[in-house]
Amino acid sequence: MTTARRDTYTPETLLSVAVRVFNERGYDGTSMEHLSKAAGISKSSIYHHVSGKEELLRRAVSRALDGLFAILDEEPARVGRAADRLEHVVRRMVEVLTAELPYVTLLLRVRGNTETERWALERRRDFDHRVAELMKAAAADGDIRGDVEVRLATRLVFGMINSIVEWYRPEARGATGPEMADAVVRLVFSGLRRA
Amino acid sequence: MTTARRDTYTPETLLSVAVRVFNERGYDGTSMEHLSKAAGISKSSIYHHVSGKEELLRRAVSRALDGLFAILDEEPARVGRAADRLEHVVRRMVEVLTAELPYVTLLLRVRGNTETERWALERRRDFDHRVAELMKAAAADGDIRGDVEVRLATRLVFGMINSIVEWYRPEARGATGPEMADAVVRLVFSGLRRA
Repeated sequence: MTTARRDTYTPETLLSVAVRVFNERGYDGTSMEHLSKAAGISKSSIYHHVSGKEELLRRAVSRALDGLFAILDEEPARVGRAADRLEHVVRRMVEVLTAELPYVTLLLRVRGNTETERWALERRRDFDHRVAELMKAAAADGDIRGDVEVRLATRLVFGMINSIVEWYRPEARGATGPEMADAVVRLVFSGLRRA
Repeated sequence: MTTARRDTYTPETLLSVAVRVFNERGYDGTSMEHLSKAAGISKSSIYHHVSGKEELLRRAVSRALDGLFAILDEEPARVGRAADRLEHVVRRMVEVLTAELPYVTLLLRVRGNTETERWALERRRDFDHRVAELMKAAAADGDIRGDVEVRLATRLVFGMINSIVEWYRPEARGATGPEMADAVVRLVFSGLRRA
């Protein structure tokens, strides 16, 4: 059985095309015309699936945010010493980032010009805050060094993790997602210097 | 003695205005008209100082690059064990980044659309390469852990350092440049976990 190309489009495939175009042109610089050309379907076919580009943005950043927030519900993020829970969260953040690379890349580039962007920034801040709380608890337990302020340490660790979107390409030879996660956990928790 | 405003403009003050506008609008999105408005002087007055916006870009990223390369010539970056030299370089990178924040921010945003941008990217790669070589030497000495690949470790450490431009504001309360440098050195070399 064959189907015409336009019939093969699902909200999912349209979303992956939209995310690619948003990341290439910037969300502000993307028109429905660009999306229609990139997807190879008419604008009215797109409107059959979604109300417009802001809905595509919302679905795309939701996928990244849902992946990140789901980490906090995993058992090793909820049970045990705060430092171990933090280590699990850092490892899984890298795994989610590498597995959902275009979606997390888009999330990290959101600037706050539309309601959806401001909502995404708010949820990002909420996630960052929950990780900072975990780090604070680990410091209170005495498991984490006390000579780097928790808020600063959180920012620097997020900086290292988030920078991965700038150069990681899953199709290239090099570290896999779980290998990257291992490397980040080692550097973040034990540092470069051999004890 | 009073001087008319246009006479107070030096290449240095024009440069600082240009860097601010480039960082706000993006280099591609900045016209000589934007620069003229932001500086409050005519376009022809700007052309009295420089040949055009690409020369301003070149001067701006040169200031950042010269600051970074100068680190490698400092004695503690040249003499001693590679791991200690690397530690000095990491510390000084954070200090230069925070001291020359708008210039380094611009350098990190360069994309490679013009000859000057490609030249800046080439020099950045050269700097990164020199730091990676230092890390390789420290690993060969056995002073740095062997279970994270050097190229990956370099990228992650640069990711942490460079992310500082996203949120560090020298005018806000919070860590000073040298305090930030201390925090980064502690995290990068010894990690979060208390031994």
